[in-house]
Amino acid sequence: MDKELEAKVEQKVKEILDRELEAKWNHYLAEKSEANKCAIIASKGSMDWAYPPLILGAAASAMEMDTSIFFTFYGLDIIHKEKHKKLKVPSIANPAMPVSIPNMVGMLPGMTSMATMMMKSWMGKANVMSIPDLIEACFDGGVKMIGCQMTMDVMGVKREELFDEIEVGGAAAFLGFASGANLNLFI
Amino acid sequence: MDKELEAKVEQKVKEILDRELEAKWNHYLAEKSEANKCAIIASKGSMDWAYPPLILGAAASAMEMDTSIFFTFYGLDIIHKEKHKKLKVPSIANPAMPVSIPNMVGMLPGMTSMATMMMKSWMGKANVMSIPDLIEACFDGGVKMIGCQMTMDVMGVKREELFDEIEVGGAAAFLGFASGANLNLFI
Amino acid sequence: MDKELEAKVEQKVKEILDRELEAKWNHYLAEKSEANKCAIIASKGSMDWAYPPLILGAAASAMEMDTSIFFTFYGLDIIHKEKHKKLKVPSIANPAMPVSIPNMVGMLPGMTSMATMMMKSWMGKANVMSIPDLIEACFDGGVKMIGCQMTMDVMGVKREELFDEIEVGGAAAFLGFASGANLNLFI
Repeated sequence: MDKELEAKVEQKVKEILDRELEAKWNHYLAEKSEANKCAIIASKGSMDWAYPPLILGAAASAMEMDTSIFFTFYGLDIIHKEKHKKLKVPSIANPAMPVSIPNMVGMLPGMTSMATMMMKSWMGKANVMSIPDLIEACFDGGVKMIGCQMTMDVMGVKREELFDEIEVGGAAAFLGFASGANLNLFI
Repeated sequence: MDKELEAKVEQKVKEILDRELEAKWNHYLAEKSEANKCAIIASKGSMDWAYPPLILGAAASAMEMDTSIFFTFYGLDIIHKEKHKKLKVPSIANPAMPVSIPNMVGMLPGMTSMATMMMKSWMGKANVMSIPDLIEACFDGGVKMIGCQMTMDVMGVKREELFDEIEVGGAAAFLGFASGANLNLFI
Repeated sequence: MDKELEAKVEQKVKEILDRELEAKWNHYLAEKSEANKCAIIASKGSMDWAYPPLILGAAASAMEMDTSIFFTFYGLDIIHKEKHKKLKVPSIANPAMPVSIPNMVGMLPGMTSMATMMMKSWMGKANVMSIPDLIEACFDGGVKMIGCQMTMDVMGVKREELFDEIEVGGAAAFLGFASGANLNLFI
């Protein structure tokens, strides 16, 4: 190829690149965002803190995000066949509760049950699903629910005590998924 | 185009691609990071836990990130016209408080107010803005402040009880924003 | 270059782009994910909540992610030379504790120490490293440990009270790192 033709080809290629590349880029970005991923860590086991991971997980999967929730630490109770039905709301040390309870009263026997009943009632009136229903919605929506192996060892929880549908995995496996997700939430 | 010329053009194009593409790639990446987005969920309503979302939100917007804070659950109090002035620090169940208070003492009447006063005093001495000032800084800095619709329904909070400048939205709208953000924090 | 040759070059260039660009794209994406970054904010200072940032930080660095932990607020205690040895588990207001303690009992003197001892024992039995060992594992694994300047000012903590290996920085510096990380966790 002579020098003159070479220069012309080079210029031509640059022109085409300028024009074509943005379209290609946007195409790839769109493809990548079609593969939207959401990774949630549920680390708390009181009833009030069981709502956020389940509500966000169900919402993300309804938005067709590839969604996983990793239940670890106190959060393991949420996928426990028995315990998930009996999650409680602490009646003390939460001055932001909708109905404020002085600590002197909150520590009396029965107040934890009362705070729990009150939250259930508020949620029900606002048509928010119960925890068991939210768990089912997550399973139905294809949310991948993972129990933390280390927490099971620490708390002495056996596989058969957890829902049959869940997977069991370690922090490393979860971090692998989460590092590729565009939405990571530690709750 | 004869076979020989075609081969030469192909080789030339590949050479140019190798050279040009990295520059283009970096250009697009830079453009993308110019469109930096930060999405924060503020879910707690005690005074100590109101600081992190507001401080991080104000800092992110000062760094010219496109910043949103979604106030949900107990965190809705932070954008409540009255309640944001009266957020409290729990005096019990937080053994990491700078001045440790035994639970037996912490549960006495008045101790929540005392813990709250102490925190205000520490913050003031270190020139940290008060909660009302931080909220104003977020509004001034262009942080998008969103109240959670579901929480308003659950807690029976009306639109006019919240700051006029806020928007009201659902989890799905927020997840849409957050999934495109490079910084997601659940606080 | 005559019109006809020009058209042929253009077509040729597009063909090559279609073929080459996907490979290039994948190459850049792979390079980018080789530069995996994990940014963790450790904001809590009780013993139970010191585990998650340290375990996840150590795991992320073992997976060769470029990992930083920003110790802020109550979390500053975790990198305090003395305090990190004495982190405590609250005995009240956590109905998800593996052994549930009624608030009336939990608030008695000595119960915080007992809850702390119990957690240490569970962790030990499951071969989970102690907090001091986890901190060392993070340092050894090259995790960048950063103390929050503002928290030091608020709590009156001096540089020499914190581990020598840490860095001291502000929220803005951390947000800069975190906004480029593919994994952000506020704990």
